[in-house]
Amino acid sequence: MYTIAELTKKINTAIEKIQYNTAPKNLYVPIQYILSIGGKRIRPLLMMMGYNLYKNDVDSIINNALALETYHNFTLLHDDLMDKSDMRRGNPTVHKKWNENTAILSGDTMLIMAYQLFNKGIQNEEAWTAFIDATLGVCEGQQYDIDFETRNDVTEAEYMEMIRLKTSLLLGYALKIGALLGGADREDVAHLYTFGEKMGLAFQLQDDWLDVYGDPKTFKKKLGGDIVDNKKTFMLINALQLANTEQKAELDRWIATTDGDPNLKIAAITHIYNIIGIDRLAQQKIEALFADSLQSLDKVKVAEEKKAELYAFANKLLDRKY
Amino acid sequence: MYTIAELTKKINTAIEKIQYNTAPKNLYVPIQYILSIGGKRIRPLLMMMGYNLYKNDVDSIINNALALETYHNFTLLHDDLMDKSDMRRGNPTVHKKWNENTAILSGDTMLIMAYQLFNKGIQNEEAWTAFIDATLGVCEGQQYDIDFETRNDVTEAEYMEMIRLKTSLLLGYALKIGALLGGADREDVAHLYTFGEKMGLAFQLQDDWLDVYGDPKTFKKKLGGDIVDNKKTFMLINALQLANTEQKAELDRWIATTDGDPNLKIAAITHIYNIIGIDRLAQQKIEALFADSLQSLDKVKVAEEKKAELYAFANKLLDRKY
Repeated sequence: MYTIAELTKKINTAIEKIQYNTAPKNLYVPIQYILSIGGKRIRPLLMMMGYNLYKNDVDSIINNALALETYHNFTLLHDDLMDKSDMRRGNPTVHKKWNENTAILSGDTMLIMAYQLFNKGIQNEEAWTAFIDATLGVCEGQQYDIDFETRNDVTEAEYMEMIRLKTSLLLGYALKIGALLGGADREDVAHLYTFGEKMGLAFQLQDDWLDVYGDPKTFKKKLGGDIVDNKKTFMLINALQLANTEQKAELDRWIATTDGDPNLKIAAITHIYNIIGIDRLAQQKIEALFADSLQSLDKVKVAEEKKAELYAFANKLLDRKY
Repeated sequence: MYTIAELTKKINTAIEKIQYNTAPKNLYVPIQYILSIGGKRIRPLLMMMGYNLYKNDVDSIINNALALETYHNFTLLHDDLMDKSDMRRGNPTVHKKWNENTAILSGDTMLIMAYQLFNKGIQNEEAWTAFIDATLGVCEGQQYDIDFETRNDVTEAEYMEMIRLKTSLLLGYALKIGALLGGADREDVAHLYTFGEKMGLAFQLQDDWLDVYGDPKTFKKKLGGDIVDNKKTFMLINALQLANTEQKAELDRWIATTDGDPNLKIAAITHIYNIIGIDRLAQQKIEALFADSLQSLDKVKVAEEKKAELYAFANKLLDRKY
């Protein structure tokens, strides 16, 4: 069994060694750039950990794992372009450092390279289909995310489905593909998928929660960003749903306020969240999803000590101190 | 053996029957739109004709063929966005009819659907690798095309490599994949690839030639468009190369002229082409490539009558009256 640190090292080494065609440079340099500026490599890591539950030669699926990481970074590249974000992981985004057309075409090429890498990996028809389904689902999630920007009636169920597609699907599929390639049986594959998906949902909701209640010393993004942008998060959707007439009117007024001191808006909406109890509601949901997630991992028919790294991974991802 | 008309009908029927996920609508409606506004279906047609040389059950590769057509339309969608083109096949482009983000994300989804369709087709490792190589090559060609916009020293060899990647590669691969799926031997696969590639080069050069010397009654685009845009075509590259000092200075002056009556610019540059003999030079190159193309088809070890539709196709594509 490999540790998270050992697998992460393998992944980063392999990313550095990806063979790009030498020309045209303007196509491949931006791809090398975005793949080199870091990230936690969560998806290839989960794929290799899923595989490692059943087989030990984790190096044999390195191209499958790189495919998933390349795909994920493609989504970041195009999402940043669509969102007009200037920075990613403390570095300028590709469309800022180069231009929009470079971001479009290098992104397209990354998506193709993802399939190329997967094709160089272990061949398995079920894994291929799973990989393609995963890549399609994330685009559907991104479309819902865009659709929600101009809607004020997004329900919690719709929101959960959006983040399931956009974020947690890929964590589930990472484990599923790793398990499929490792030769796991149908039940284990399904449980590992659910473990990843529920963990992903809990992680995304925690991200929503941290935007409001995070510690400014340790939270990596700017606190209150979602509030300022009127992002339909779990927090806002539930606040709008549970607010009384007066609170609803105040929320609507703040949502319509797009100029002025953002800190006033953050403070006012946080205050309403506090009164309505959105903090506790979110925490309960995160706890429940995290518990569901771990229960699915419990059911995987593999010796406990083999699963230890996956439990550790989940706790670390959700930043649990236990 | 199926005729071109029969195969085209099969392809168009299959395109109409593509199963899209029902939601999110904003993602899939633009994809249906671009696939429905026509086109000659050259690539899936060539794939099926290549296959039909060896096997008769052409319906069994319909998903592979649709994959190639979906991929091709994805490139049109993103190229139109990058080129800021307003119209495609007489209809508004996706980024005009919807918006830029829709064009990015629906295009990405089309690219993924192309792989999904190929994965639903006949499985064959060599064909998969060929399909991925083809999709990557076209992006490289598009990057060279973008690079050339801001360069004035593009050589004919560089230009030929660009159009090889951007345009003719996919015609060659269409035939190659069809032949591979049909069980052709290595030699036939290579000859069919070359037939398609050379035919594609001749077709693209003819497009360059038609921009200057086409009949305004039958040429579908606006004559002289490449001249107005200073596009580094086979015509302009050779004119710059072969011009004497005076002609070169005049060409440079017209290239620097981006305002004023475009018809004056078209007339002046055409006049220089006429003096230098670019017309004949292009015609000779087209003839030579077309002859090479047909020679490769000659070498394919299949009964002449089976190849008749491919000869007819090539003649029709190059609009030969013989």
